[in-house]
Amino acid sequence: MHGEEIVIEIARNARAASYSVAGLSSEKKNVALHAIAKALVERTEEILQENLRDLAAGELAGLSKALLDRLRLTPERISAMADGVRQVAELTDPVGVELERILRPNGLDIRKVSTPIGVIGIIYESRPNVTIDCAALCLKSGNAVILRGGKEAFHSNSILARILSATLVANGIAEHAVQFIPTTDRVALGVMLKQSKYIHAIIPRGGEGLIRFVAENSTIPVIKHYDGICNLYIDKNANGDMATEIAINAKCQRPGVCNAIENLLIHKDVVEKILPQVASALVAKGVELRGDVAACACVSGMKPATEQDYRTEYLDLILAVKVVDSLESAIVFINEYGSAHSDTIITLDEATAEKFLCGVDSATVYWNASTRFTDGYEFGFGAEIGISTDRLHARGPVGLRELCTYKYKIYGNGQVR
Amino acid sequence: MHGEEIVIEIARNARAASYSVAGLSSEKKNVALHAIAKALVERTEEILQENLRDLAAGELAGLSKALLDRLRLTPERISAMADGVRQVAELTDPVGVELERILRPNGLDIRKVSTPIGVIGIIYESRPNVTIDCAALCLKSGNAVILRGGKEAFHSNSILARILSATLVANGIAEHAVQFIPTTDRVALGVMLKQSKYIHAIIPRGGEGLIRFVAENSTIPVIKHYDGICNLYIDKNANGDMATEIAINAKCQRPGVCNAIENLLIHKDVVEKILPQVASALVAKGVELRGDVAACACVSGMKPATEQDYRTEYLDLILAVKVVDSLESAIVFINEYGSAHSDTIITLDEATAEKFLCGVDSATVYWNASTRFTDGYEFGFGAEIGISTDRLHARGPVGLRELCTYKYKIYGNGQVR
Repeated sequence: MHGEEIVIEIARNARAASYSVAGLSSEKKNVALHAIAKALVERTEEILQENLRDLAAGELAGLSKALLDRLRLTPERISAMADGVRQVAELTDPVGVELERILRPNGLDIRKVSTPIGVIGIIYESRPNVTIDCAALCLKSGNAVILRGGKEAFHSNSILARILSATLVANGIAEHAVQFIPTTDRVALGVMLKQSKYIHAIIPRGGEGLIRFVAENSTIPVIKHYDGICNLYIDKNANGDMATEIAINAKCQRPGVCNAIENLLIHKDVVEKILPQVASALVAKGVELRGDVAACACVSGMKPATEQDYRTEYLDLILAVKVVDSLESAIVFINEYGSAHSDTIITLDEATAEKFLCGVDSATVYWNASTRFTDGYEFGFGAEIGISTDRLHARGPVGLRELCTYKYKIYGNGQVR
Repeated sequence: MHGEEIVIEIARNARAASYSVAGLSSEKKNVALHAIAKALVERTEEILQENLRDLAAGELAGLSKALLDRLRLTPERISAMADGVRQVAELTDPVGVELERILRPNGLDIRKVSTPIGVIGIIYESRPNVTIDCAALCLKSGNAVILRGGKEAFHSNSILARILSATLVANGIAEHAVQFIPTTDRVALGVMLKQSKYIHAIIPRGGEGLIRFVAENSTIPVIKHYDGICNLYIDKNANGDMATEIAINAKCQRPGVCNAIENLLIHKDVVEKILPQVASALVAKGVELRGDVAACACVSGMKPATEQDYRTEYLDLILAVKVVDSLESAIVFINEYGSAHSDTIITLDEATAEKFLCGVDSATVYWNASTRFTDGYEFGFGAEIGISTDRLHARGPVGLRELCTYKYKIYGNGQVR
């Protein structure tokens, strides 16, 4: 078979498997998840060998150190993957929950019940752990999953996928509940993204280029975020110490993640009072500041920011600073320049905070807290498959519950219209 | 400006308006809705004049009687449209509802709150009332809306859109909250479907051809159903009288709608006992039956069904009949041939019913009731903008609540990670 035919066959098989996966008991799913964790640890040597093939090819291809590090598996990392799977087993089953019940005057008993989405396609890049994380979350939520990883991790992903399949079959679960696309060809990916008859949702995880390719070529609904241009706004009624502490945390605790801030806005009335303190604390942590004229006038050594700086996800210790006239200007700026991911206001004034929380049109909006909390674990979801800055279906962290849809089960006794 | 530029300008203006529309009070929205209803009645003559232009062009173009009837406005129909708008005003505001609250151990207070989706594009065909219905529902749910109607109703839609805009402005609501695309060119439609930066959801209403064009060309999420191939399954434990009554209702009460049945399945054990009664009642109502070999053997005069019959949405008094071996065969058949819209089982056995309700992967699944209840009004939603057979975001009737998304408003007091 050619790549295209293989992809269609995989999609068709996933849909066929999805009906039985949707009906699996919690116990059966959890037994399988524990078996997967066990198999990962037991077959560590095999996984490491395949991973070495990817690493060797990666070095030959001149991959960056950072990329090689993402790719590298170690016994510890495999053990951590297994722990993650066991944690998913411990989570509450999201399927079959009665979300709402409507009793109609004609006696119809309408029950809105959570169900798996069906078949989910995961498109990702070079981290092999995504293979295991996503398979575990999809299985737990009763979905069949099709995994399409990047070429750099191809051998690592392949052995992980074989371990997944073998363990599922050994535990009496449909063989095609978890499948791996055995090619990293973009044409085959394009074909996968058109299988809306068989695949119900696509979740891309990776760089903006990959996500944009997926969004532009998919006829299947996509749950995604392109980037995280998160903003912190220091209001005129902010506490300077709190502003400093939150700015440091939101920028520096882990600068390479999507919920770290890229822009700092400050009300003109407190530039002189608060900005020097915040700026010197950030600079002391190694952050390069780039500001507008008003900010640069207040902080010596601050570089001038370009228009493009305010639209850039640095994922690095660089922060763009802007002085704004009012709360309203801050909101307009964030809605225009941000990526609708996570934004926060620092203020002691409740009415101002509430205006910000309502006016900023982002998935998660904070009052006096770091943007770094946008995360399925931090929200208490137990795990997440990603973050959505889209508006339909899921917004913010996407956990087990967001991997489900619903149906209406309607109980009658002969009703007609 | 060319058509393409006009569409982009409209989309940009809609997005700009959406921020203020999202924050409108319930009272302000309701006052505007009542003003729209009043204006429709007051300007009836003007509307009828424009409608006459469409009717004259339609007759010249040789439109069918049915299409001309859909297009035709009368004082009564305009008055009914106004009543519909007043009813929307009476419904509960779906915006700003606290859907969930999560108190975290670190003191973060996470509130999941309903918000408007943002900008919604409605693509429809020849019914002018869609212009008013959709504008009212989008306004009530705090969304800006872009209306793109079919060419047959162009003049009718244009005057309705002008009345909408004028009334909004007179009531202090952003001029671009409701906009009408002043061209029915497909190229311009294609451009509209790519404005994912400004438009957040597309709802197509019309024939399968239009919906397929939209689904295949949109980079914006689409809420849709292609067709309604609904199924009724008579189980071996069915009551024959109830089966007959529900079959008649589901097929004949209004055969031209998407929640009417197109296929009737019956368990082999009760073919001789129940099928003759059901068949003769349907035939007496003017229904043409087409069956498989086993069904034809039982009912004299039944035509043989082709494979294609079971995949056809007749929207007419024709029904395909099939005898199945088991409940499981019925479920597999419905998942394969149906359109995941509305399906029902007639049985006295609860365990059988529950298997059917769980196994049939459709938006709405019934036990001992007519499929005709799949409707926002019948569900108690008060109104609907359409039905979704998609899985993400909304499934089944799409009412005011489904025209909303959510955001997380997070209240802290200095939390950092």
